[in-house]
Amino acid sequence: MRSLRITLAYDGGSFAGWQFQPNQRTVQGVVEDAIFQITQERVRVQGSGRTDAGVHALGQVASVELNNGLPAERLCLALNSVLPDDVSLIDVSDAPPRFHACRDAIKKRYRYQIDNGKRANVFLRRYRWHHGQTLDVKLMHEASQSLVGRHDFRSFETAGSERTDTVRTVSDMVVHRDERDGSQVNVEVEADGFLYNMVRTIVGTLCWVGHGRKPPSWVGDVLGALDRRKAGTTAPPHGLFLVHVYYPREVLEFQPPENASGS
Amino acid sequence: MRSLRITLAYDGGSFAGWQFQPNQRTVQGVVEDAIFQITQERVRVQGSGRTDAGVHALGQVASVELNNGLPAERLCLALNSVLPDDVSLIDVSDAPPRFHACRDAIKKRYRYQIDNGKRANVFLRRYRWHHGQTLDVKLMHEASQSLVGRHDFRSFETAGSERTDTVRTVSDMVVHRDERDGSQVNVEVEADGFLYNMVRTIVGTLCWVGHGRKPPSWVGDVLGALDRRKAGTTAPPHGLFLVHVYYPREVLEFQPPENASGS
Repeated sequence: MRSLRITLAYDGGSFAGWQFQPNQRTVQGVVEDAIFQITQERVRVQGSGRTDAGVHALGQVASVELNNGLPAERLCLALNSVLPDDVSLIDVSDAPPRFHACRDAIKKRYRYQIDNGKRANVFLRRYRWHHGQTLDVKLMHEASQSLVGRHDFRSFETAGSERTDTVRTVSDMVVHRDERDGSQVNVEVEADGFLYNMVRTIVGTLCWVGHGRKPPSWVGDVLGALDRRKAGTTAPPHGLFLVHVYYPREVLEFQPPENASGS
Repeated sequence: MRSLRITLAYDGGSFAGWQFQPNQRTVQGVVEDAIFQITQERVRVQGSGRTDAGVHALGQVASVELNNGLPAERLCLALNSVLPDDVSLIDVSDAPPRFHACRDAIKKRYRYQIDNGKRANVFLRRYRWHHGQTLDVKLMHEASQSLVGRHDFRSFETAGSERTDTVRTVSDMVVHRDERDGSQVNVEVEADGFLYNMVRTIVGTLCWVGHGRKPPSWVGDVLGALDRRKAGTTAPPHGLFLVHVYYPREVLEFQPPENASGS
């Protein structure tokens, strides 16, 4: 038995999210089917976290234990050859025994993409939330900085979650216009963990500042209120990308023992 | 009655091409339906040319004659409000009487987009032809230059067309890697007219050079052979974009007489 770390991209538009659900097309289900097709092993793939229906990934990470002895790169090629065209494995690497993509993650980076052109760009409509009214990106960035640091983020968590610990540390937050196409706005957030719909609620809230409906200082007030009803709307899923999941060096630099890959 | 020039973008992925066909979803049909919904006028919209099923447009141009007296910009907003999200009017302007988008066009520019990343990028798969093997873009550009100028392009026309005059003038042709993302390759072609599948056949032919299957000088030989069977394969439609249609200054600078817009 060996542990593997799988890094993958997917277009979430035609998936009912990451997590397996019977009779639904999910990323987890599709990856598990591909693994079965190549290795004849029926296994559970563990994601670094769930992504909701419609949310995309540039670098989701999953862990899995397999008996199959193929070198990791060959397994990657074989799996890509049977995966549908909206899922693509970026990398498959051997990982330390009992590597767990969710438990071992140190932090994650998300990007939320906004199309701020006057007319919605037809080629970006699947991957960007359209706002025809010009956003004041400088004010949004200023407002966002009150969220950086260790805080209780329950104002930005959609009700219904069972999580009781709502304290997270946001290590980076940037709101900026694309250098090449000034009508495109991106919001980037890096944290040690995220509450349910946290990025989408932060983005919806920052847009109220960007439209001039609220001043930048209001975002800090929302954070302090510890009350979801004080925040703005939740931005739709199709603008959200899981960009990167960070792991400790011992996971990334792990070298499997020689000939250890056999079953 | 007034003439209008409509500039529009569309994602061709869910259309059976530009031209109206009964019981098919076509761009022409969708635009004509929108005009009827807003103006109650059942008219024929004339495109600068047909685009095939799956081909996209950043700046297709169409002409239409209407009795409706709304200012052109308001008509544009109204039509966009009822058009589906894969078609977007960029501009509606008054045009000289009897303006005809096809007959009056001087030249057109097309772009063909190739994803030359080792793995297909899931977010580009609808808009780029994937080539996993690295293309020698310098050789492709060199080869393409033999097509610039006035030539008989019948070697690059798919059989079955009824056109008898196959001489066209290519005024510009560039093959280059995207500055920001070096794994993306674009082929740009500007000409006074295009034969059926001409850009797609040129691109398929240039890719044989890019893969080292043929030397750059071979493309000139194909052109000289006047025989479609000498050329390479026809690239698929989903990488092709109609970028721009050029018209004479008197069309672009036309100002409607005051109060002339009423019926």
